[in-house]
Amino acid sequence: MKRHPEPRRIAVIGAASCTAHEAALAEAVGRALARQGAVLICGGRGGVMEAACRGAKAEGGFTVGILPGVDAREANPYVDLPLPTGMGEGRNVLVVRAAQAVIAIGGRYGTLSEIALALKLGRPVVGLETWHLEPAHGPPPPIHRVASPEEAVRLAVALAQRLP
Amino acid sequence: MKRHPEPRRIAVIGAASCTAHEAALAEAVGRALARQGAVLICGGRGGVMEAACRGAKAEGGFTVGILPGVDAREANPYVDLPLPTGMGEGRNVLVVRAAQAVIAIGGRYGTLSEIALALKLGRPVVGLETWHLEPAHGPPPPIHRVASPEEAVRLAVALAQRLP
Amino acid sequence: MKRHPEPRRIAVIGAASCTAHEAALAEAVGRALARQGAVLICGGRGGVMEAACRGAKAEGGFTVGILPGVDAREANPYVDLPLPTGMGEGRNVLVVRAAQAVIAIGGRYGTLSEIALALKLGRPVVGLETWHLEPAHGPPPPIHRVASPEEAVRLAVALAQRLP
Amino acid sequence: MKRHPEPRRIAVIGAASCTAHEAALAEAVGRALARQGAVLICGGRGGVMEAACRGAKAEGGFTVGILPGVDAREANPYVDLPLPTGMGEGRNVLVVRAAQAVIAIGGRYGTLSEIALALKLGRPVVGLETWHLEPAHGPPPPIHRVASPEEAVRLAVALAQRLP
Repeated sequence: MKRHPEPRRIAVIGAASCTAHEAALAEAVGRALARQGAVLICGGRGGVMEAACRGAKAEGGFTVGILPGVDAREANPYVDLPLPTGMGEGRNVLVVRAAQAVIAIGGRYGTLSEIALALKLGRPVVGLETWHLEPAHGPPPPIHRVASPEEAVRLAVALAQRLP
Repeated sequence: MKRHPEPRRIAVIGAASCTAHEAALAEAVGRALARQGAVLICGGRGGVMEAACRGAKAEGGFTVGILPGVDAREANPYVDLPLPTGMGEGRNVLVVRAAQAVIAIGGRYGTLSEIALALKLGRPVVGLETWHLEPAHGPPPPIHRVASPEEAVRLAVALAQRLP
Repeated sequence: MKRHPEPRRIAVIGAASCTAHEAALAEAVGRALARQGAVLICGGRGGVMEAACRGAKAEGGFTVGILPGVDAREANPYVDLPLPTGMGEGRNVLVVRAAQAVIAIGGRYGTLSEIALALKLGRPVVGLETWHLEPAHGPPPPIHRVASPEEAVRLAVALAQRLP
Repeated sequence: MKRHPEPRRIAVIGAASCTAHEAALAEAVGRALARQGAVLICGGRGGVMEAACRGAKAEGGFTVGILPGVDAREANPYVDLPLPTGMGEGRNVLVVRAAQAVIAIGGRYGTLSEIALALKLGRPVVGLETWHLEPAHGPPPPIHRVASPEEAVRLAVALAQRLP
């Protein structure tokens, strides 16, 4: 039985409240992901997540919201598949595991936890104006810093294809 | 911003190894769900889950596999969106929370845990040749027992529409 | 390095609201567990859980409450170690995994989910006036039904010792 | 019913493989926690976690290991209460939620995720030679950087007492 070809699954992570500039970046990332035929995975809430989903839907993409709460209605209006988890911030690891690569835009502590989990779990991390991280010893983590949403998506999709 | 209409999300639960009869029931449930435009949520593995997904894909439906392990390749070949959770049996509660109603077909202990969680979390449970449950006191749980896959789907979709 | 001997970890599961008779059973189970030197694992809330913890503390035992919410103060007053999980009913699987055997007293849907998960994960289940379960095919699950709290504890501790 | 006084619950987080210097810091932290009567919460594995537990046991403390796997035997030999979760890295959020304050020693990506989750969930973070973090905008996170294990414990216990 041949498995039908699967679209790439790319997570977009960022804060539930963000600047207009970050929202514009996220929307452009969402648009570019949809044009690539990738499924957009996110935490399903507002801010960067909502802007990314809005962009994806504008280009006919498909969006998944892995929600912290128990009610699907907490998803932003551009989420096609809301998945309430009831796990609070415990859902962050599920966002990362569901994805084959992660695009981080700005972000605060929740986003930082997702970047860290992605690094731990071997998901490539592409960063747009996001956290700078330095361990006490050794090299900084391999975050692929890019300058534009289009470059973020191109790189994330390329890196994702190397993962199962 | 008007929310675009969402398809119903119905979970099909049952064992990863099942009889040919249960597989036939599950495949027919999958077909009927797809014809109703419902999204099929399941645990993503073999047996009842695979048969239901195969049925749904035969009718052009959409299938989600919420997997126990960390590798998307453990999904059966008819899963459109594999979501590895890395939570083992802890993912059962996620299958239930993701759904607006649950159809149980046969099943062993994992399925029993999902039936119980669905009852606890207020998801309607429709049963096809599944567990019989009696508490020490009080009435048996409100499992809607049906005689055919088509009736199972009709009832699950109708009951799901009463939930957010 | 020799590992210091560990006490048995036994879960007591049952509803957060229960009859006076169930509470009396649970309290006697808690007392007997403490006299055996076992650690009592539970969901940390009221009803059967609280009565079991109260019994354990009356005999100088140690009690762990794996809580559904995010606030340690939701533990009953007899919990020594409250562990808020923020996972809601998703914490049920953690109660079961933490234990080497499970004693079910009465119980409703949450308890039923824990019995099912224990059966799935290979934890021996000892039952006191609890659910009766029958699969569609095959033998009923191996729930060890006992007639007294003392017998429940004796059996649970004996069966637990066969597990890592 | 008066609640019996509860000991503080302090998490020690750090990598499963660490330098001798980090192990020495962790062991001293464990010793100081035990002398304060605090319960040591950790991920239950080797490296920093094992050294901290060894220190705590040397002073008669109590140690809890919230394990990623399904087998209690994966705990280091100084864990009093092993809690297998079967959630992999998903257990990191449980380590943080279980604690009233967090002491980070060195650490790699798993530790970084726990620091981030602690910041998100309002657990005070005390750092010993650990990550340096800078968001794209705004002030760095409120990690309390200290110079000695004793200072780390003193501060963590003091900050923990402000939490439920």
